[in-house]
Amino acid sequence: MKVDGKPTRTIWLEADGWSVGIIDQTVLPHRFTTLRLKTLDDMARAIKTMQVRGASDEGLDRAVAALAATRPTAINLKWALDEVVAAVRNRPREARVAAAYRRAAEIADEDVAINQAIGRNGLKLIQDIAARKTGEPVNVLTHCNAGWLATVDVGTATAPIYTAHDKGIPVHVWVDETRPRNQGASLTAWELGKHGVPHTVIADNTGGHLMQHGMVDMAIVGTDRVTAQGDVCNKIGTYLKALAAKDNNVPFYVALPSPTIDFAVSDGVAESPIEQRGGEEQSTMTGRTADGRIETVQIVPDGSPVANYAFDVTPARLVTGLITERGVLKASREGLQAAFPERAGGGR
Amino acid sequence: MKVDGKPTRTIWLEADGWSVGIIDQTVLPHRFTTLRLKTLDDMARAIKTMQVRGASDEGLDRAVAALAATRPTAINLKWALDEVVAAVRNRPREARVAAAYRRAAEIADEDVAINQAIGRNGLKLIQDIAARKTGEPVNVLTHCNAGWLATVDVGTATAPIYTAHDKGIPVHVWVDETRPRNQGASLTAWELGKHGVPHTVIADNTGGHLMQHGMVDMAIVGTDRVTAQGDVCNKIGTYLKALAAKDNNVPFYVALPSPTIDFAVSDGVAESPIEQRGGEEQSTMTGRTADGRIETVQIVPDGSPVANYAFDVTPARLVTGLITERGVLKASREGLQAAFPERAGGGR
Repeated sequence: MKVDGKPTRTIWLEADGWSVGIIDQTVLPHRFTTLRLKTLDDMARAIKTMQVRGASDEGLDRAVAALAATRPTAINLKWALDEVVAAVRNRPREARVAAAYRRAAEIADEDVAINQAIGRNGLKLIQDIAARKTGEPVNVLTHCNAGWLATVDVGTATAPIYTAHDKGIPVHVWVDETRPRNQGASLTAWELGKHGVPHTVIADNTGGHLMQHGMVDMAIVGTDRVTAQGDVCNKIGTYLKALAAKDNNVPFYVALPSPTIDFAVSDGVAESPIEQRGGEEQSTMTGRTADGRIETVQIVPDGSPVANYAFDVTPARLVTGLITERGVLKASREGLQAAFPERAGGGR
Repeated sequence: MKVDGKPTRTIWLEADGWSVGIIDQTVLPHRFTTLRLKTLDDMARAIKTMQVRGASDEGLDRAVAALAATRPTAINLKWALDEVVAAVRNRPREARVAAAYRRAAEIADEDVAINQAIGRNGLKLIQDIAARKTGEPVNVLTHCNAGWLATVDVGTATAPIYTAHDKGIPVHVWVDETRPRNQGASLTAWELGKHGVPHTVIADNTGGHLMQHGMVDMAIVGTDRVTAQGDVCNKIGTYLKALAAKDNNVPFYVALPSPTIDFAVSDGVAESPIEQRGGEEQSTMTGRTADGRIETVQIVPDGSPVANYAFDVTPARLVTGLITERGVLKASREGLQAAFPERAGGGR
């Protein structure tokens, strides 16, 4: 996607052929800064502090455990690590580095191609609604950042939105702020704004009210893990929006690249590990003062404990469809098995 | 309630017998400051900026329109204004001020007595759960601030909690942050902490996950207006929590003084006016820096529009019961009529 006119990905190999460049997503939307990661520690820290997000991460065999531990809920981080490990296993030591970089580069390009396919498949859903609205914008609600910043490029939940917008279909996005890390207000709003997509930032509390009053035509969110029966693990609060969508007959879609499907897990609520992150994400807020300084402020009283559960699970019964690179699937064991017969047999 | 050992109400008549003292709730939890209000403008500004909240406000006949316009969703503000107007109407001009102050003082004392009754009635609900939990704390989720800071004293949603805590029943409160104004993180956490009630501040997104995992025994919220059929208008996001409670068989209670019931309105979703507040409540956040300065920071990108719907409506079908000064009622036309036959006949 473009940033101030320049095509940009979220992660790239630097010119030295060795170190990795990323956008520092922790200082968006107020500063656009890139970082160069040179060591395993650099990379693990970048994932853990969410300077870089999503699943397309370079890794080496000895580093897999450290990197996998950074984001226990993200199934496609583990998938990418396994892929790179498979590419280097049984190779002579001197060939391992080149093989790892090659597979990582392939994964990055595959990620972009998958998301473009998600965009094409989701476009039809938006077009159908647009046809009924005769010129009025299609109002899409999204939660967290499943935009291009969360992937290598294009995004997952945003892929249908960008595809529709680029085709001239009027789209307006309700952007959930997404407490406690504000990925919606900081990242989704930033990337939609940079691409020129009309949007409005709202508190996470707002979506139910909007749906009650016919102000949301569809919801599209991303996911960190979809189970074999179609349960959706995603940013905390997704489940609440899915409940509201069901209660108001608003279609609720989840966009995902197939590496996000975990055929080894069935019951998402019972079996998904939910990452608990540091309390300071809830007790403080970082932003820009009127005179341009970046400040972090405490927003809870001294001595008040906080909790920070990062994800929740939306049961498949609340999901209208899964937008994948192989089409829009029913969120069910049958829907997933039919589209991915080669993987659904068991294990991953 | 006590603040640093000193009994305190949210609003009081100053020693001059004329001006009104309030706690400035906009600088909590970081500063405890009181303000003296001397003019109609002072009072209207204090309500509009939420320095003082809830419904127990002094007013004079000529000021009713200005004061009523400050918080269009709050039905008991209108009720209190009507009460004071009725007290001064048809009185000689020289007797009006004294009559208005007298009726306002009565309303303040009635408010405290009503909330104490709500506490006693809600206590039974907490005791029943405590009996099953054999020593484990009863986990109560609340949204926004329906605590003593939102009333004259004691609070509504918090009245059963304080009553149970003071009786030695172990209670733990999940405090929804309550974006965009953070009344939960700023006010509810502050007053629970000052009173010694165990609590944890969470993002508004979190409650559904906690309910899925059996970590919430009951929800108790306040309300700004309950309709004749039991629909509940309350802080934006309440509806989402009620949906999650229903989906997980968690009892969802609404605590309210009866002036909050609006027998003139039936369908809350269709008929309740929803206040839209300034966008800066969503686009900025105020808190305390590590070195003690109060700073306001912008948390959305430049140029991203925001929306700030302040309330939503929870349909009666999602409400387990209404905790009132006359007992715990079914959230239905029949439940309200049976408890308030003198008002349910029509109009207010």
